[in-house]
Amino acid sequence: MTTPNRALHLVARPNGLPKDSDFELRDAASVPLGDGQIRIAVRFLSIDPAMRVWMTEQKSYWPPVELGAVMRAAGIGEVIESNNSKFPVGTWVSGMTGAQSELVSDGKGIQRFDAKKLPHPGWALSVFGATGLTAYFGLIEIGLPKAGETLVVSAAAGAVGSNVVQIGKALGLRVIGIAGGPDKCAFVKDVLGADEVIDYKNQVVNDELKRVCKDGIDVYFDNVGGEILDAVLKRLKLRARIVICGGISQYNATGETRGPANYLSLISARARMEGFVVIDYLHRAEEAITAMTPWVQAGKLSSKLDVVEGLPNFASALRRLYTGENVGKQLVQI
Amino acid sequence: MTTPNRALHLVARPNGLPKDSDFELRDAASVPLGDGQIRIAVRFLSIDPAMRVWMTEQKSYWPPVELGAVMRAAGIGEVIESNNSKFPVGTWVSGMTGAQSELVSDGKGIQRFDAKKLPHPGWALSVFGATGLTAYFGLIEIGLPKAGETLVVSAAAGAVGSNVVQIGKALGLRVIGIAGGPDKCAFVKDVLGADEVIDYKNQVVNDELKRVCKDGIDVYFDNVGGEILDAVLKRLKLRARIVICGGISQYNATGETRGPANYLSLISARARMEGFVVIDYLHRAEEAITAMTPWVQAGKLSSKLDVVEGLPNFASALRRLYTGENVGKQLVQI
Repeated sequence: MTTPNRALHLVARPNGLPKDSDFELRDAASVPLGDGQIRIAVRFLSIDPAMRVWMTEQKSYWPPVELGAVMRAAGIGEVIESNNSKFPVGTWVSGMTGAQSELVSDGKGIQRFDAKKLPHPGWALSVFGATGLTAYFGLIEIGLPKAGETLVVSAAAGAVGSNVVQIGKALGLRVIGIAGGPDKCAFVKDVLGADEVIDYKNQVVNDELKRVCKDGIDVYFDNVGGEILDAVLKRLKLRARIVICGGISQYNATGETRGPANYLSLISARARMEGFVVIDYLHRAEEAITAMTPWVQAGKLSSKLDVVEGLPNFASALRRLYTGENVGKQLVQI
Repeated sequence: MTTPNRALHLVARPNGLPKDSDFELRDAASVPLGDGQIRIAVRFLSIDPAMRVWMTEQKSYWPPVELGAVMRAAGIGEVIESNNSKFPVGTWVSGMTGAQSELVSDGKGIQRFDAKKLPHPGWALSVFGATGLTAYFGLIEIGLPKAGETLVVSAAAGAVGSNVVQIGKALGLRVIGIAGGPDKCAFVKDVLGADEVIDYKNQVVNDELKRVCKDGIDVYFDNVGGEILDAVLKRLKLRARIVICGGISQYNATGETRGPANYLSLISARARMEGFVVIDYLHRAEEAITAMTPWVQAGKLSSKLDVVEGLPNFASALRRLYTGENVGKQLVQI
């Protein structure tokens, strides 16, 4: 009871890339448990691109994190004290734990999972967490892919993108991944199994798309926006679907967001651009997990974890998403 | 047989607004009719925003008009000579006549219509032509409107927009029209019956949308793009649908098209932006006409014609669409 809870508080709205000084670590005495409550020792935090949006005052699918509040984060941890028979001590759980070392909860919104069945408990935050569900439902419900179609995925070495590439292959699509730098591109092609890969840092995306998508693009899973979205818009097949999952190239823009200048191609292609948020599909998580488990067992769907140590390194872990340093699912270990 | 055919040829690709000198009037001797052919005296041409796109080398749903060729245009006219029993002399017909005084045709792609049943033959190019079908199918198939929802229509005093406003009202929607200047706004509200109207030339669209769409926008029928599209994107209701019918504010841009900077709102609103071209629905014209006829008979759906005289004034009639001078359906009478 004497271990303090160490929590990362948001103390400034970011301007450009998130800075260490946008956060402040504060210790607080652990509070005693009430009836039905549990104490979770948080082990890993999920570091997500949308965090940059939550830090601003922008309207989003969740309200902004208030200044002074603990930074919002999904996490996993172990129950270390329990007044709730549904969550005995030793149980691994996941939920919106916040960026802190422990969470006292009545169990609402907290899910148990069997860490022993996973290669690493962190998979509960990747393939079997919001990341995997984002890839699965975004591709299937919004992308409406059909076997044999051409799928382009941006940020293909990232957490969501890498899952989309693999799910696309498992569904029989021709998959083109876009990533930055030779290491990530090798990962996307050799490990994830993309048919083609484009290195946006060393190649002209527009020219490469023209070369590898001669017949056009049926589905584009967009995590980045900006110039890549514009290049894709020029090569849409009739009735193409663009899944707007994120716009990571724009989140740290200090000026105006760059809108897709070629959006009028949606007319000639009779194409669709649709936004989506995974929280609408959380109640269907079981369905996705049932579909993805055989792919995981067959080695078709895996998760590379990219772990940074310690809550004080939260901001630098978050920056890795926008600077293109991270490969796979970015986590912070506490 | 000695009347020459006078035709308007495209001789230069436009830069900015179409100029008179982008076209050249040429006379050619009338050719004698072959077996099964008809000669159509073209009476009215439909002047459409997309013409500016056809004049360029841009990829579109139709190939560019080649330099030197007769300018593409939909038109109506009367059969004045006939070797085809399906089209006796005196029959009114519509089709892609081109910008010329007469057309020799084997009847393929040419539709007969009963001009006596219409208030003016020009209605075959407005409500009962591609304009009306664009409004009807764009709103219904892409906008997926439900009675009671809020519909915003840009270029609401234009040919397509004015039909969308009226169809929206007939379907029981709350309709907000956006148009330029007090005269057009009065037309949209008093004649077309919009619930609210916004004058984009004298009001701040963003502020007015905030005032009149407090609960957000369900369907946006976009004919203009640019700043108005951006303002709408900020006020989308959950699962809103944006029908991308045109981007008239951008067609004459000499620089890059202005992409919708607020497109990431599609994510938080789980909204969709979809392009569409009326030619995909021409085979379902009968269905639309059957649905619209009772509205026309009840006075709920009408068409204001805006007629410019003479083929030499084709370019100036076309400019009226982009300068905001025209109200209703722009035609050229030959």
